[in-house]
Amino acid sequence: MVTSPARLIALDWGSTRLRAFLLGSDGTVLASRQSEQGASTLSGEAAFAAAFEAIQGDWPALPVLACGMVGSQHGWREAPYAPCPADAAALARHALKLHQRFWILPGLMHDGALPDVMRGEETQIIGALARHPELAVQCCLVLPGTHSKWARVEAGRVMGFATHMTGELYALLRQHSVLARLMPADGTPAPSSGAFVAGVDAAREDGGLGHQLFTVRTLGLFKRLPPEHLPDYLSGLLIGHEIAHELASGAPARLAVVGDPALCDRYAQALGRFGLDAPLQLDNTAPAGLWRLAQTMGL
Amino acid sequence: MVTSPARLIALDWGSTRLRAFLLGSDGTVLASRQSEQGASTLSGEAAFAAAFEAIQGDWPALPVLACGMVGSQHGWREAPYAPCPADAAALARHALKLHQRFWILPGLMHDGALPDVMRGEETQIIGALARHPELAVQCCLVLPGTHSKWARVEAGRVMGFATHMTGELYALLRQHSVLARLMPADGTPAPSSGAFVAGVDAAREDGGLGHQLFTVRTLGLFKRLPPEHLPDYLSGLLIGHEIAHELASGAPARLAVVGDPALCDRYAQALGRFGLDAPLQLDNTAPAGLWRLAQTMGL
Repeated sequence: MVTSPARLIALDWGSTRLRAFLLGSDGTVLASRQSEQGASTLSGEAAFAAAFEAIQGDWPALPVLACGMVGSQHGWREAPYAPCPADAAALARHALKLHQRFWILPGLMHDGALPDVMRGEETQIIGALARHPELAVQCCLVLPGTHSKWARVEAGRVMGFATHMTGELYALLRQHSVLARLMPADGTPAPSSGAFVAGVDAAREDGGLGHQLFTVRTLGLFKRLPPEHLPDYLSGLLIGHEIAHELASGAPARLAVVGDPALCDRYAQALGRFGLDAPLQLDNTAPAGLWRLAQTMGL
Repeated sequence: MVTSPARLIALDWGSTRLRAFLLGSDGTVLASRQSEQGASTLSGEAAFAAAFEAIQGDWPALPVLACGMVGSQHGWREAPYAPCPADAAALARHALKLHQRFWILPGLMHDGALPDVMRGEETQIIGALARHPELAVQCCLVLPGTHSKWARVEAGRVMGFATHMTGELYALLRQHSVLARLMPADGTPAPSSGAFVAGVDAAREDGGLGHQLFTVRTLGLFKRLPPEHLPDYLSGLLIGHEIAHELASGAPARLAVVGDPALCDRYAQALGRFGLDAPLQLDNTAPAGLWRLAQTMGL
């Protein structure tokens, strides 16, 4: 087996998790590790340094490039946001040199009527464009999650983006709200594509999110949906409202969904209810983005 | 001092609180009591009976009429929902006789494309119409709260209504979300009319609720709003989205807001941002509603 020599340690360091990749001289992933020492679990430089040492382990002392919440106000050190529009070169210019062999990438800021921010997703976007250069011409990239991002790309630049708190609202309502009492305990037993689609379709009617959320309760109360299907209906409502808002000013010509495959499948299904073709789906583009940005920086 | 003889014990028995009123033969409140023994804190008939005995205390053994969650599936006994449209006579017909001198009023159900329900607010509505008969001709009644209700009334009948989970979303986001971390600990220190109005105005732009909620974070992050004003901005966003949805199909000719005066003031201020005149504001209409319904029932 021929493997390229190790060349870069790439860190995708989010709020709740740290993912480390040992990348070869052609950008391939030679090895990967993961720990629960996300940025939100750590406080102070020493804690971050120790978490890095632990995950680096016996890997060689290569240049390190990190993206994500590690560069936030409450991270290892703050790497101020780069402004939109931004391409790989702009992100590279804003990288923060932590020490001789360690750089932290900036997040991205879009200052419209109200400001919006991302940290980590800008690197996933660069990775998606690196893996699918045809997307760089013009596309809309959807990165679903706790705080879903919808980013518009033109000529390799992120022109602007919007965040939706879809995943966080789901978790709050699933765990702490009056709706939670009608649902089975945690987990998603008996996933129901039908209930999910019913939620998406309700959202397409645009009854107002704060109003439609209450229908999770009433549909359960009148036994029109069984308790085990209510989480999927809630998920459909929330994802449907996100999509309805983003498509309000017209559907993008080219759309791709980036992230966890199961979640991307949900978005693909929901987009289909809005009449869109199946989008391109991409998983785990952070290593490709870190590699591309490391090359741009000359690491 | 002349007081009318006691005639009825009226109970406004919600999820979290029990309010009891001793009403005279002309419907005036002779005395009132309150306990924390809301329906959600009690389980089983004996617990409800004991809570009633405790609050009744030394009051005479008069007929008792109760409204609210005491009549829910998890209440003292279930009083099934009356369907819309419904007037005082319809609600009275659906009252459940618990025993010789104790009746529980039904909630109200509106079965549109998706069902909606209320319990307790139907009695407040009847009370508002009793106190302001001009509203009975035609009006829209707003009952803000954990689950805000917007009810359309024509010729003394509740034609239909919609629930918005505005108050519950506020509490969830204020206490458990990523937004909470940017705000001062609980309470509403330094209330800011300006931040509240900014939230309402943002909602009028209709950026999608799930998206706009994230601006609570970004406005805090970039210090465009101080931490102590973020709760008011969040409140403005949520109330603004509720109003925007309800006014989407046109503003009602006559509108009244029923409930806690401080909360009604917020709604009045927000409605003003949508160009509406100051609405009639009514507080504590449950006793008037219970009295009116007791008369209709011949108690």
